Amino acid sequence: MYTNRLLVIGGVAAGLSAASRARRIDPRLEITVLEQGPDVSYGACGLPYLVGGQVRSAEQLFVYSPDFFRQHRNIEVLTGTRAAEIEPGRRRVRAVHAETRKEQSFPYDRLVIATGARPQWPQIPGIDLPGVFQANNLEGARSLMAFIEGRSAGAGSHRAARAAILGGGYIGLEYAEALRRRGLEVIVFHDRDEVLEGFDAEITELVEGELARHGVTLLKQNPAQAISGDGAVRQVVSGGGRYDTDLVLVAAGVVPCADLAASAGLALGPAGSIGVDDRLQTSLPGVFAAGDCAHSFHLVTGRPVYMPLGTTANKQGRVAGENAAGGHARFPGIVGTAAVRVFDLECARTGLSESEAHAAGYRFVTAIVEHPNRPQYFGGTNIRVKLLAERNTGRLMGGQMAGADGVAKRIDVVATALHARMSAAQLAALDLSYAPPFAPVWDPVLIAAQALERRLREQ
Amino acid sequence: MYTNRLLVIGGVAAGLSAASRARRIDPRLEITVLEQGPDVSYGACGLPYLVGGQVRSAEQLFVYSPDFFRQHRNIEVLTGTRAAEIEPGRRRVRAVHAETRKEQSFPYDRLVIATGARPQWPQIPGIDLPGVFQANNLEGARSLMAFIEGRSAGAGSHRAARAAILGGGYIGLEYAEALRRRGLEVIVFHDRDEVLEGFDAEITELVEGELARHGVTLLKQNPAQAISGDGAVRQVVSGGGRYDTDLVLVAAGVVPCADLAASAGLALGPAGSIGVDDRLQTSLPGVFAAGDCAHSFHLVTGRPVYMPLGTTANKQGRVAGENAAGGHARFPGIVGTAAVRVFDLECARTGLSESEAHAAGYRFVTAIVEHPNRPQYFGGTNIRVKLLAERNTGRLMGGQMAGADGVAKRIDVVATALHARMSAAQLAALDLSYAPPFAPVWDPVLIAAQALERRLREQ
Repeated sequence: MYTNRLLVIGGVAAGLSAASRARRIDPRLEITVLEQGPDVSYGACGLPYLVGGQVRSAEQLFVYSPDFFRQHRNIEVLTGTRAAEIEPGRRRVRAVHAETRKEQSFPYDRLVIATGARPQWPQIPGIDLPGVFQANNLEGARSLMAFIEGRSAGAGSHRAARAAILGGGYIGLEYAEALRRRGLEVIVFHDRDEVLEGFDAEITELVEGELARHGVTLLKQNPAQAISGDGAVRQVVSGGGRYDTDLVLVAAGVVPCADLAASAGLALGPAGSIGVDDRLQTSLPGVFAAGDCAHSFHLVTGRPVYMPLGTTANKQGRVAGENAAGGHARFPGIVGTAAVRVFDLECARTGLSESEAHAAGYRFVTAIVEHPNRPQYFGGTNIRVKLLAERNTGRLMGGQMAGADGVAKRIDVVATALHARMSAAQLAALDLSYAPPFAPVWDPVLIAAQALERRLREQ
Repeated sequence: MYTNRLLVIGGVAAGLSAASRARRIDPRLEITVLEQGPDVSYGACGLPYLVGGQVRSAEQLFVYSPDFFRQHRNIEVLTGTRAAEIEPGRRRVRAVHAETRKEQSFPYDRLVIATGARPQWPQIPGIDLPGVFQANNLEGARSLMAFIEGRSAGAGSHRAARAAILGGGYIGLEYAEALRRRGLEVIVFHDRDEVLEGFDAEITELVEGELARHGVTLLKQNPAQAISGDGAVRQVVSGGGRYDTDLVLVAAGVVPCADLAASAGLALGPAGSIGVDDRLQTSLPGVFAAGDCAHSFHLVTGRPVYMPLGTTANKQGRVAGENAAGGHARFPGIVGTAAVRVFDLECARTGLSESEAHAAGYRFVTAIVEHPNRPQYFGGTNIRVKLLAERNTGRLMGGQMAGADGVAKRIDVVATALHARMSAAQLAALDLSYAPPFAPVWDPVLIAAQALERRLREQ
């Protein structure tokens, strides 16, 4: 049977990748995308840089307009249209228009669910006060900027001088930098002992030093317990005391938006995400899920994992779109690669951290080295590299790095080696590029791999 | 039998790596290194930057002194000591002291030959005139600088204003930049149609544009045929005419120093290099060779190849040293990775170029894309990426890139994928790092791999 109607729920990374890929596979398909918000396809990862002033205007973050998809890809994108219910038996989705509240049903032959994730919202007193902002979408960033600049209704003409950030993860620390750039005092409330998910202490201690050097106060193992204020935010209360602030930014991670899928009876995966196979098909034939609402497969552990990232969302969208259009694509999985810049420190990781490997029950060895990113005579500065390998097999399991420069794209060598299930010895033998402007003759990755080999021999 | 005397001929990259590795494996070994020149262990790749002024003094290029090896590693390094003959039957090397001309014989149980390579010296009239310099060693760089600054004996007080470079390879173009930085007019005589060994026209056209933009005259398919002058260099004559110049810099590549080995009856490999197996043992048991004097094994073609590079020299030295000390290390081979910066353009390659793949008889497809190194809103600039894959198997065969920034360490992902014999599809599925300061959500490598997949499907 020829599939003629593809419906996509969600018009950001995964949804639009799916729609675009499906169009390329099948020019005849009728493709409709439902997006609940007013915007499609913007670079959400650029939001901290918009707030920090490195990105001049929100318009720069928009990659494509709904009109672009209509005119150039023959894809109908309906913004302000919230999917309210999936009716698998009738193969249709009931949606509500945001402004008119009018209901409409969209029939489908194949469905891609790309509903994304929503901010984890701490259930603490005062979280609904004016002056509390969310870090994960454009609306939040715009409100935050208006508030900082004293343009908010009710904020009077006062500019904000102090900010409290709830969460010391990637987004939280990117915003810490952004708000310092705007001249605010910044205090970060973090629930665990280490900032940045998936890094071990040898790397996070460098991050903490960098935060301190730039005047950010970090409170570890110290989640916010309440926000207080007389009509607006005035203080954040934590186990450590009461802290004055003018605003609160919530950057406490995200949870998958899987309610629609769950209500329709679809099986769920880790962290309440939508369960998918390696073709990204859900438990219901013909219904696919991709992006931050779905889980992924970890190639190092061989287990399902929920790790929402823009890169994965785009790749998954592409695979879901191809399959929804009748193709046969696979999404092999992820190795858990992530990078972040915290002021002048680049940090990147891939595979398992020591604590993750420990929690997963592996027996492993680790090696930590510091080695310059360029020859000393060419102004090289040290990169700290930590690698893990499985004890008995010597298989590489993960890596982390931090340094002033040349970190993020170096982790990709380790990530590629993880995809290939290389051993520490194979990593150490790689023919990597060298010239004084780019690297020393022994790349830090090779030096770390040599140290890892030694640790494996010593065991 | 306990091996107690290791002799190493050559005290630069491979030789000192071998000696150091051997010491680590066997603390009791008696290790002697013979180096014909006055210097050991300097960063020869930094010479163009010394001449260009980015490296302040030659001292910065010295990594370790002979004293360092003596005191910290118990390795005797004899500079100014030229090995004149290997006597395999007697297991000894006859050497001549550079100053005293005194002969001395050094007995060995194991021998590592790390004699390096010497500049290819064009046999043209006038090549011996004063004002002709070689690009490949510190002595040449120092003489060149003295000449430029009018400090040479016989050069009078005139500073040089015009330079002719013979050879448009990596070193030649690095020196073109260096000499432009010093304010000289620069003309490059190149014998082939494309600069930079191993790059195809789609990349070299960007290099040519960069050279032109910085005022370097490039004459392609136009080797120098003679140098003329009345007591000193005045003109270079080529098929294209006669060109005035104040100095000539020879950067026409290198040839392996294999004479000693050949005279001793050792088998030779490609380009007259010393033949070795994957343990870097020569045709004579107990005699190893490493670095620019030896060949390597190309992991993409599965054939021996001569490609002298500092990274390979160090890795080979390490393996030869380990085996010479009784260990069992292997050097798996290279994938042909190289990187160079030409003014503000970064260029990098790995695996086979289109012309190399063609010459080797492969059937392949290529893909070329341009994609930004960062999001557009974060000031991204385009990287041009060319990839090759084998037609029937889809196996990745090589890659080349050029762009303003973020090229050299990106090629390492392709190099790692070549080591792992990945397909285009596997490359496209890699979980690479992403954050706005470092990369766009689809890394240029992934975009190129997708294009390569399409080309494979279209065939």
